[in-house]
Amino acid sequence: MANEAYVKELVSLKEQLKFDRVFDVAGAKNIVIAGMGGSGIAGMIFQEIYSELPVYMVNDYHIPNFVDKETLFVAISYSGNTEETLSAYDKAAEKGAKMVAITSGGALASESKEPIIIPQGLQPRAALGYMIMPLLKSFGMAGNDEIGEAYDILGKIDAQNEGEKLIAEEVAMGKKIPVIYGVYPYKAVAYRWKTQFNENSKVIAYSSSFPELNHNDTMALKNTYKKSDFYFFCLSDNRDSRMDKRIKATEEITGTMFRQIGARGKSRLSRIMSMVHIGDYITFHLAGLLDKDPLNVTEIEELKLKLKE
Amino acid sequence: MANEAYVKELVSLKEQLKFDRVFDVAGAKNIVIAGMGGSGIAGMIFQEIYSELPVYMVNDYHIPNFVDKETLFVAISYSGNTEETLSAYDKAAEKGAKMVAITSGGALASESKEPIIIPQGLQPRAALGYMIMPLLKSFGMAGNDEIGEAYDILGKIDAQNEGEKLIAEEVAMGKKIPVIYGVYPYKAVAYRWKTQFNENSKVIAYSSSFPELNHNDTMALKNTYKKSDFYFFCLSDNRDSRMDKRIKATEEITGTMFRQIGARGKSRLSRIMSMVHIGDYITFHLAGLLDKDPLNVTEIEELKLKLKE
Repeated sequence: MANEAYVKELVSLKEQLKFDRVFDVAGAKNIVIAGMGGSGIAGMIFQEIYSELPVYMVNDYHIPNFVDKETLFVAISYSGNTEETLSAYDKAAEKGAKMVAITSGGALASESKEPIIIPQGLQPRAALGYMIMPLLKSFGMAGNDEIGEAYDILGKIDAQNEGEKLIAEEVAMGKKIPVIYGVYPYKAVAYRWKTQFNENSKVIAYSSSFPELNHNDTMALKNTYKKSDFYFFCLSDNRDSRMDKRIKATEEITGTMFRQIGARGKSRLSRIMSMVHIGDYITFHLAGLLDKDPLNVTEIEELKLKLKE
Repeated sequence: MANEAYVKELVSLKEQLKFDRVFDVAGAKNIVIAGMGGSGIAGMIFQEIYSELPVYMVNDYHIPNFVDKETLFVAISYSGNTEETLSAYDKAAEKGAKMVAITSGGALASESKEPIIIPQGLQPRAALGYMIMPLLKSFGMAGNDEIGEAYDILGKIDAQNEGEKLIAEEVAMGKKIPVIYGVYPYKAVAYRWKTQFNENSKVIAYSSSFPELNHNDTMALKNTYKKSDFYFFCLSDNRDSRMDKRIKATEEITGTMFRQIGARGKSRLSRIMSMVHIGDYITFHLAGLLDKDPLNVTEIEELKLKLKE
């Protein structure tokens, strides 16, 4: 039952791409995006691919001192009640920043003059489309053609994800610890996968990126104990020969095999969102195989209550 | 022998704090710092604590589009031959950014008009003091009193690190996978520890931060398989009651014990550098216990050669 409810959320991702609310971006000198966990990922993906202005991510209670009237401050909280994001929002508003709120309701919707209201009833992490599209559209980064292509491709993944299930089986059988390496523009997506392994499958996982990992992880990959306990993913376009050479050389020198995951489609939107969605399904199938309910976030909810005591 | 050579590098950290070369920071609208691995950490720590201007980290070949004449571009490469950093440097120079290079030599020293030259002969990760002090001093973030305090405190850790050895023994005995959680202002330091576990001890490790991990890792902490394979560190000041409550609640709700690591000293410089140095010693002792040479970075070197083929 829980699985059916979650599948309903998963297949809604493609519909979310049609969400067309935008906000005014004129006059901003820099952009600060506040968001935690599943809500923060939208900002992280945007930060990786938009670089016309400095984009600074906040995932804490405080904001940087440079925030002023020329800062575009975007607070993203699916529930609208994330205490870190609300704290950051208040501080930025006091400094006179241009304020944007993307939320389904809660205190954030009440505090914001013109909030971008997204539909309620989903897990925050299942609402990534609603949270990222206002960013991409407001900055002219997703046209109708791209949205159409991405819609079709996500639909195909929804209809056919047996390959993702096979991968999940490999992870489950060996009780593996997933490690996800992302190559630009999939570094934030690698982190998204890590969080999906945590929340959907209830499994510890971590992410890093090429070429950074060649300066640290590489030494452990060759020599660490318990190496066979890990399962290594590499999210890459395989379109950059220099990066391909790097990945291959890392595999050879450290004696490690990476499970290569390729993006689908032509446009950047399709490629990024398909890479996200492949991870959604691997982690969803893994939850099933481990007999975990992907919708269950009891400990996160318990923690929020305890902090209010 | 290798150990003696490495200890020599470790105990030089306090001396590095006296390095007093600075660069001109006037007129910058934003700051971009390029650096990989051990050289990038200096930028990451700076980014976490300096927020008067947007600080953007580059750990790849490309630079953000916003880089222009009003950007202060700081390239940090201990060797001066890191190909990603050199690529980013060239691109920023073409765009007319204000260029700063912090390096011990190599191509970066040749390309830069007035490089900040730091002493050669260390492992890059052992030269953190040389790489971070020009940033802190140029922005007026480290006075002589603070440097004096930090010098004394690092010296005490050099003289007495039996407690760090005991922790390393616990990790080694259980063949644990270290997980390091950082609380502001120690989020970048947590990443530094991760990289030191990788490079010194040749062990896979990962880092994350509070409160972000309460939105993802928390679900895995309670339910994951192989939980006893991990060793959880928490780098915290224990001075922020809200954050303390959060850490404690996370331990209780997920049934996890964090090894709390406290910083030493009064000034921010002492506290951050002591937190770094405690990790240096734990990972150094762990290398010894695992019979690994902390100075050995064979695979990283092999990779660099292979990429040049």
